Amino acid sequence: MSMDLAEECRTWAISAKAASRELALASTEVKNRWLLASAERLLADEVAILAANARDVASAPDFGLSAASIDRLTLTPNRLHSAVEGLRQVASLPDPIGEVREGHTRPNGLQVLKIGVPLGVIFFLYESRPNVTVDAAALCIKSGNAVILRGGKEAQHTNRALHERLQAELPKQGLPTTAVQLVPTADREAVGHLLKLNEFIDLTIPRGGESLIRRVAVEATMPVLKHYLGNCHLYIDEGYPIDGALAIAANAKCQRPGVCNAIETVLLHRNWAETGLRPLAEHLMKLGVELRGCPITCSAVPGAIPATDDDYAAEFLDLILAVKVVSGWPEAVEHIARFGSGHTEAILTPSMAVARQFAARVDAAAIAINASTRFHDGFELGLGAEIGISTDKFHARGPCGLRELTSTKYLLTGDGHIRA
Amino acid sequence: MSMDLAEECRTWAISAKAASRELALASTEVKNRWLLASAERLLADEVAILAANARDVASAPDFGLSAASIDRLTLTPNRLHSAVEGLRQVASLPDPIGEVREGHTRPNGLQVLKIGVPLGVIFFLYESRPNVTVDAAALCIKSGNAVILRGGKEAQHTNRALHERLQAELPKQGLPTTAVQLVPTADREAVGHLLKLNEFIDLTIPRGGESLIRRVAVEATMPVLKHYLGNCHLYIDEGYPIDGALAIAANAKCQRPGVCNAIETVLLHRNWAETGLRPLAEHLMKLGVELRGCPITCSAVPGAIPATDDDYAAEFLDLILAVKVVSGWPEAVEHIARFGSGHTEAILTPSMAVARQFAARVDAAAIAINASTRFHDGFELGLGAEIGISTDKFHARGPCGLRELTSTKYLLTGDGHIRA
Repeated sequence: MSMDLAEECRTWAISAKAASRELALASTEVKNRWLLASAERLLADEVAILAANARDVASAPDFGLSAASIDRLTLTPNRLHSAVEGLRQVASLPDPIGEVREGHTRPNGLQVLKIGVPLGVIFFLYESRPNVTVDAAALCIKSGNAVILRGGKEAQHTNRALHERLQAELPKQGLPTTAVQLVPTADREAVGHLLKLNEFIDLTIPRGGESLIRRVAVEATMPVLKHYLGNCHLYIDEGYPIDGALAIAANAKCQRPGVCNAIETVLLHRNWAETGLRPLAEHLMKLGVELRGCPITCSAVPGAIPATDDDYAAEFLDLILAVKVVSGWPEAVEHIARFGSGHTEAILTPSMAVARQFAARVDAAAIAINASTRFHDGFELGLGAEIGISTDKFHARGPCGLRELTSTKYLLTGDGHIRA
Repeated sequence: MSMDLAEECRTWAISAKAASRELALASTEVKNRWLLASAERLLADEVAILAANARDVASAPDFGLSAASIDRLTLTPNRLHSAVEGLRQVASLPDPIGEVREGHTRPNGLQVLKIGVPLGVIFFLYESRPNVTVDAAALCIKSGNAVILRGGKEAQHTNRALHERLQAELPKQGLPTTAVQLVPTADREAVGHLLKLNEFIDLTIPRGGESLIRRVAVEATMPVLKHYLGNCHLYIDEGYPIDGALAIAANAKCQRPGVCNAIETVLLHRNWAETGLRPLAEHLMKLGVELRGCPITCSAVPGAIPATDDDYAAEFLDLILAVKVVSGWPEAVEHIARFGSGHTEAILTPSMAVARQFAARVDAAAIAINASTRFHDGFELGLGAEIGISTDKFHARGPCGLRELTSTKYLLTGDGHIRA
């Protein structure tokens, strides 16, 4: 049976590659028409889609899903409408294909253009959130790439209901149906087979827990765009106003604790801590945050639990925050070098000199200066929709929008030019 | 012994990582001073360097090197001077580190900058040409990256002589000596160990034959920048002036037949071939080119040898050219899709419509329109020095200069901004 599955995976990948060649030539108009028609279709079929989701939610306990996971799996009318809104937003974004990224004319008259082109075929693996089925298909098609989707088996009915409708709209716009495929089997072996097919698949994007991403990074024979979760820090330097610091710390920790750009540790300059630590701790605890502190923190803050190195290394993704008093920015930079995940690191400081040192020495996809870490996000930075936040340095770092799903091609135009 | 070598490789990689952190903070001025001081040093020690090279050349027959390889291994005064010139040129190029690649201010006043930063540590593997030791060190240091060099054992004395001098200039400018390391052993096992160290090495660049690159691509645990050799085509469309076509075909084949952007096959529109094939064949044969042709070519050109599919697939890198008459651009595009290597593909045509179709449908790092394929080169495109031509679509495609050896970091600056 295993051989048959390998053969099937190959067939999917080959048909995706064939579709990608047609898709690379599709006009912006045609791609946008598919996005808007898909939006209409999902709205029209809302009842059927929510019914499919109800089946998944009903079987969720069989998969041993936690309450938080069941919540992420659940498609409410609001969430479906926001996926539909996502399709429309992607339609309104500029097309990265055909975009002239750079261009100049050489002294000899040769015109050099660097043009955006699709990568080809993207294999997209994700876990429970069924909205991702819609987001990923939208971003891949708009960027001219064919996509092979592989959602979690706990969301299979929802994913099938969504995929069926997205796919049905493709031929109506003259696009190949194999441009958006959903791996029809819950068999985990299929993933292993697909990760070997670098001849046909140009990029794999795993979106989910760290173990999924690590497995994919090891097994994949093609490039992988990795976005691990973030262990993000906020360093509060001496002299920064207490009120402003409280507002930013609360925003960075509490506005949405379960996301990758929320903070997990605050580092406080000891001079700032003298007057700021207690108000900060009280403010956060009032908001329901559990504090795990260094010895200075624990002696000053009743209710703070002693922090271990495991706490400093943890991505709590919850209303828990580690707190550490440091001697100044160099110790903060050292702590971040040891425990940070290269996602988002913030500093609050009145000093230009300190801000420059921190920004130069901390190695992360984004450094926030006197601003919340929560701004490190595709929408907030003006990229429009994003497919994830890359913590890699290769190809793309930070939020990955449409342009990050593309490559380039040089066009060299002359009139009979030969090289001297 | 093997365990010790693994441990040693780890030590090199760790010290390279440490050096990369210092190097990331080095000013353009300091990096340029190192480049210029190294240039002076190589010139001052020319006699000793050429003597080291003479030892390698003397032992070349022991390694079974071909005459062409011995030529590539040989360091003449001219070649050394051109390496020295390369150091000076890299000093004159703009620094990609700290460069603001994109920037804007969001409606809420948050300033968003995307800044060039180094990748970290680059492992550079190459074969006989010892000039690469100098070029690679120059490009890596200027782009703020530490580099671990691993040249061929046949060039070991030359590489050591060059490396020793490049490294000695580092501490004089306050740069860490482990920023430029040369793997001191000819043991091939060291390569295997280093390719496993993705914790410390951020990118591997193999430069050499296809088998070296394929081996590295399979074994490496970090990203690999691949530049396979090119199987490049020139398609001559109907109506293109015969004289111009002859000049471009000769330039693309004969100016330097051993390089990746030289052509290996010409495809001729059958209407063009009626009058153009014989003059083209005569012109090229006069220049010493051996022709391997399709049946139409062979019947029209005395001396042409019948071409096989192996010929169409070959990268001759020599004065040999396959010639095929086709029915028009669609057949040319199909032939290129089947045999091309995605490097450089050229078309000669008087028709805007045909040029657009060809440019859109051919998938390659560069498309040359009415120009020689030989322009697909970092210097010719205005990038300055290049470390190779990427045929990958990920991270970089086409000539890789300083900027392609970097990543980016977002700087988000506010004054107390929190996310709504």
